Amino acid sequence: MHEFELIQNYFQKLSKKSTSSLNLNDDVFFDKKNKLVVSVDTYIEGNHFIDFKKPDLVIKKIIRSSISDLICKGVKPKYYFISGSGNKKSFSKPNLLKISKSLNEEQNKYKIFLSGGDTVFSNKLSFTITSIGFANNIVYRNKAKINDDIYVSGNIGDSYLGLLILTNKIKLSHLLSKYFTNQYFMPNIQFKLTDKIKKFANTSIDISDGLITDLEKMINDQKLSYKLYLKDIPISKKLKKTLDLKKLSKINYISNGDDYQVLFTASKNKRRIIRKIATNFKIKLTKIGTIQSIVNKSCIVDDKNKQIKIKNKGYFHKF
Amino acid sequence: MHEFELIQNYFQKLSKKSTSSLNLNDDVFFDKKNKLVVSVDTYIEGNHFIDFKKPDLVIKKIIRSSISDLICKGVKPKYYFISGSGNKKSFSKPNLLKISKSLNEEQNKYKIFLSGGDTVFSNKLSFTITSIGFANNIVYRNKAKINDDIYVSGNIGDSYLGLLILTNKIKLSHLLSKYFTNQYFMPNIQFKLTDKIKKFANTSIDISDGLITDLEKMINDQKLSYKLYLKDIPISKKLKKTLDLKKLSKINYISNGDDYQVLFTASKNKRRIIRKIATNFKIKLTKIGTIQSIVNKSCIVDDKNKQIKIKNKGYFHKF
Repeated sequence: MHEFELIQNYFQKLSKKSTSSLNLNDDVFFDKKNKLVVSVDTYIEGNHFIDFKKPDLVIKKIIRSSISDLICKGVKPKYYFISGSGNKKSFSKPNLLKISKSLNEEQNKYKIFLSGGDTVFSNKLSFTITSIGFANNIVYRNKAKINDDIYVSGNIGDSYLGLLILTNKIKLSHLLSKYFTNQYFMPNIQFKLTDKIKKFANTSIDISDGLITDLEKMINDQKLSYKLYLKDIPISKKLKKTLDLKKLSKINYISNGDDYQVLFTASKNKRRIIRKIATNFKIKLTKIGTIQSIVNKSCIVDDKNKQIKIKNKGYFHKF
Repeated sequence: MHEFELIQNYFQKLSKKSTSSLNLNDDVFFDKKNKLVVSVDTYIEGNHFIDFKKPDLVIKKIIRSSISDLICKGVKPKYYFISGSGNKKSFSKPNLLKISKSLNEEQNKYKIFLSGGDTVFSNKLSFTITSIGFANNIVYRNKAKINDDIYVSGNIGDSYLGLLILTNKIKLSHLLSKYFTNQYFMPNIQFKLTDKIKKFANTSIDISDGLITDLEKMINDQKLSYKLYLKDIPISKKLKKTLDLKKLSKINYISNGDDYQVLFTASKNKRRIIRKIATNFKIKLTKIGTIQSIVNKSCIVDDKNKQIKIKNKGYFHKF
């Protein structure tokens, strides 16, 4: 069963049917009356992170993943709760020191602070992070309009290459390996975009499961489709170089998740302000496609406007 | 390492040093400026609950345990987030139906609603519940005063007997077994007390780990001690009957946790109002001891004012 189905069939009716609730159908919960925004995510060893050999890096990854949910909605994270389940080895003194140091670094970088949590004994390592922020309004899912431009922040795919390196599925030079694995553990989440995105975005999501999966999630309630231009999907110079070197197709490296970049749509009349903000604040924002009426099928096209098949749209949570 | 130590050594410095934060040293986090109260707890199969043979009851137990943290602080829970990690068997369709039904029953009983969460695949079953409420003020820990009366709500020990029955450590009649196991799974948390406790309590905690353990936690920062009267510690008629029948000592059955009753202290001049509220709202509130200066050692005494040794003060979270 897909997570989507699970929520719809068993849990949606338990959420409050009011405008303040998002019916469990968004990255965050927004209580408009109390201006409260909450994100809850669980990260499991062997699933959301490979192992705990580098506790310092794993902690950075999950903190960024959690606050990324708020950031993509235009909400500054204020504090967070971390609940860790693990055994003596996972929570050894050296590991606790590393965890604590990493949290401290993330706190300074993103101006957040620890507010509580729980630590319980378990042979299976997992963390649940609750991130909280306050806002008068947020950018919702399912608010795209026909003819909207589709944008993505930063670069896509670096993190996936990092994962391939960490799981020994690809071999690269030490320098490149270091670069890509760092992108996997410490994605460049778009903190600077937080207080600006509400000025132009109609709808938004952060890319955790994959560009296409998350794009489809962003508009899942709407009778809309998308057209993406493969050549416009932004990748780093290092990824471009690596794909060329290894003769790999870009299409297989742009929708595998863990990017934690912001995907959003905006009306065409916002192009100027988006360009201006991108330049002034040095935020990479790239137009990669268009929202269309459902009469057109969703597609990705190549340089010659020819449709390309994509094998993997991203990660689906299944039971 | 005790959980207490772990927090103090590695995480306390990460919390904000302001009056709004409780320095990770309370059941809840309280953001006074935003009037926000948050509790985060993780529950693991084989630790916080025995197994998942009765998903409907396990779910009730963990929801009540979570909102109990808010209730004992005088805060009405408003909504909650549930993050479940489990496998296909734990989250089978019949189980999901039971989980959903139980959540719905608890929602109606306690006027709360589901606001989000996460579901992830794991071979180890666990849940993290985040409960949220709003309040101008809360009853804190570590605010007991010398000569305060110590009170407890409801009855103590029923839940522990339920656990002994469920783990085949004691055998009772079907009727008694049913009663005690129901108390284990569905503790009578003191919902009615929520909006009244602030009128008289100086400090409070809910009993999850054991009467003595939690009493010591409640005053852990203070240079104070306690004196408890064993005969005054309230137990149900059914537990009294069972202890008599099996020739068991009361002292071994009053500090084993899972009670989810409210433990609090109040000045002696509050005795009248406490009696009045207890009578008017039919809330069982029992005076069980006194807060003393640290020059006296903490103790429990019998009918003849003789100190009794207690083997088990309750549950300690260790790594």
